[in-house]
Amino acid sequence: MTHAVINRLAAKPGRRDDVVGILLESGRAFDGNDDCLLYLVTEAADDPDVIYVVDLWTDEASHAEALQAAAIQDRVGEAMEMLEGKPEQIEVRVRGGKGVSES
Amino acid sequence: MTHAVINRLAAKPGRRDDVVGILLESGRAFDGNDDCLLYLVTEAADDPDVIYVVDLWTDEASHAEALQAAAIQDRVGEAMEMLEGKPEQIEVRVRGGKGVSES
Repeated sequence: MTHAVINRLAAKPGRRDDVVGILLESGRAFDGNDDCLLYLVTEAADDPDVIYVVDLWTDEASHAEALQAAAIQDRVGEAMEMLEGKPEQIEVRVRGGKGVSES
Repeated sequence: MTHAVINRLAAKPGRRDDVVGILLESGRAFDGNDDCLLYLVTEAADDPDVIYVVDLWTDEASHAEALQAAAIQDRVGEAMEMLEGKPEQIEVRVRGGKGVSES
């Protein structure tokens, strides 16, 4: 079943762009991964520190596997140091809509 | 500039499926609208009442215009009655990623 997560990250003051940069760079590893249906990196318009990432994967195992890649792990560690607290992960189930196929 | 919103809706107990149904049905109007890049209807895995909708549009005016369509307005009113409080709209700016083209 499609695995979907809305991630909310709060960067330390002044570090959001750095975190976004790492998320975009490390996310390039997903470009060639057919199991990644959507990896959408956004920043809150009304809060200078907050980032939202929307992940859609064909299934939970593929997502977990992609995150285990050594290159990703290094960058994730780097980004984590620039965050206030831990990322909040909201697990959601896709019900439908436009722009992303269900599986 | 791309207009992106993460919407959080809390349905009254037992009404989530009804609200999701209306969101999916009324969202079909966006299928033929090239300004709608993503309309993703999801439900929280850990809360039986919560719905998240991720909207991506080519620009804010197109999104606003699409929501003004009479058919949509009727259904939105219907769905609103099944909600606890008002939808929370988190405006976000797309920074990049996979699966949705930026504009």
